Amino acid sequence: MTIPRHLDEDLNLLKEKLLIMASLAESMIHKAVKSLVEKEESYFKQVKEEENKVNHLEIEIDELCLKLLALKQPMATDLRFITSAMKINSNLERIGDLAINIIERAAFLLKQPQLKPLIDIPRMADLAQKMVKDSLDAFIKKDADLARSVLKRDDEIDDLKNQIFRELLTFMLSDQSTIPRALELILVSRHLERIGDHATNIAEDVIYLVQGKDIRHHIEEENRN
Amino acid sequence: MTIPRHLDEDLNLLKEKLLIMASLAESMIHKAVKSLVEKEESYFKQVKEEENKVNHLEIEIDELCLKLLALKQPMATDLRFITSAMKINSNLERIGDLAINIIERAAFLLKQPQLKPLIDIPRMADLAQKMVKDSLDAFIKKDADLARSVLKRDDEIDDLKNQIFRELLTFMLSDQSTIPRALELILVSRHLERIGDHATNIAEDVIYLVQGKDIRHHIEEENRN
Repeated sequence: MTIPRHLDEDLNLLKEKLLIMASLAESMIHKAVKSLVEKEESYFKQVKEEENKVNHLEIEIDELCLKLLALKQPMATDLRFITSAMKINSNLERIGDLAINIIERAAFLLKQPQLKPLIDIPRMADLAQKMVKDSLDAFIKKDADLARSVLKRDDEIDDLKNQIFRELLTFMLSDQSTIPRALELILVSRHLERIGDHATNIAEDVIYLVQGKDIRHHIEEENRN
Repeated sequence: MTIPRHLDEDLNLLKEKLLIMASLAESMIHKAVKSLVEKEESYFKQVKEEENKVNHLEIEIDELCLKLLALKQPMATDLRFITSAMKINSNLERIGDLAINIIERAAFLLKQPQLKPLIDIPRMADLAQKMVKDSLDAFIKKDADLARSVLKRDDEIDDLKNQIFRELLTFMLSDQSTIPRALELILVSRHLERIGDHATNIAEDVIYLVQGKDIRHHIEEENRN
């Protein structure tokens, strides 16, 4: 016979699973970009294994949330916490997908001569990875200030993306043999930008959860019905 | 005094709002690509207005779902229907964002000489738009076959995207003055691809909802815990 657990215990289990998933997603971003910078193929297998774990966790977390909604009938804050967890879950899974996209582009680039030493792409990756980490920490600790700091960093990511685009455009215009490689690098920077967007989604959910205020789309209270 | 409504009525209201949101998203895709093909700026304002409506609907739908979860304590199928609605809501909002991205690229391209007559991009847009429509219809009618037909079409979108990429690469390699325009068109095709991905997410959710079978990541029952 199993002793019925208290909702708090279930919520702790949910937090734990989300944290594991987030650290897997962070590791995937890190390794995908490392393989690109170091021209090192050995990370591919590890990243694919991590993706597999992330995919299993996504389903587990979704099912856990549904079970909690159905069996525990949580109210108010707990309810909102669980529905936020479901959204964060989707965002983390997409982040994993984007890391896979990056490593697939790395696979192409590794076979080509190096276009230029990569400086801004690893910086962008560090930023994106930290945004993912902090958005999850903000969720677990219900820390709206930390969540807001994630939102601010989205502009830095965008600036880096634009800088990378301009630099690679110069390469392409001066030497057409660089075009295929430059295109791949531009797309890598877009994937990193989207990782930042997903972290931003999570941070917006955290602010909503903590303050009960929906900051998506910057819609002011008075405009809402 | 208000008479408490039956859950079915609330669910119908939810369906209605999602259908309105989906048709706005479809219209945004259509007009964004039309402005690109016809080199016509007059669609910009309309698409921005539709985005504003989509953003308001996202919040309304989210709040309606939370209210239903909290006050009606739905069980089994209804519970899953509501949590699916929340996910579909996020996907539709992202589709609107992507239409905005397309129209922003159109704004740049309209000021440039036409690179080539656009054939594949409007085909891709038609496909993506139909996928959005059918994934929503599949949800409303709980039609798993229609949802599966959406999944199949994702490969067609990918093929078109690859074809567009190859063609534009040829342009860039033969005439470097085409590079900035070709890059923008490549990114438009990526936005359309992502719209197809979001429709695919919705279709996968529908199959899960109807068959209770999770087809994400093709993970078989025996592998799951």
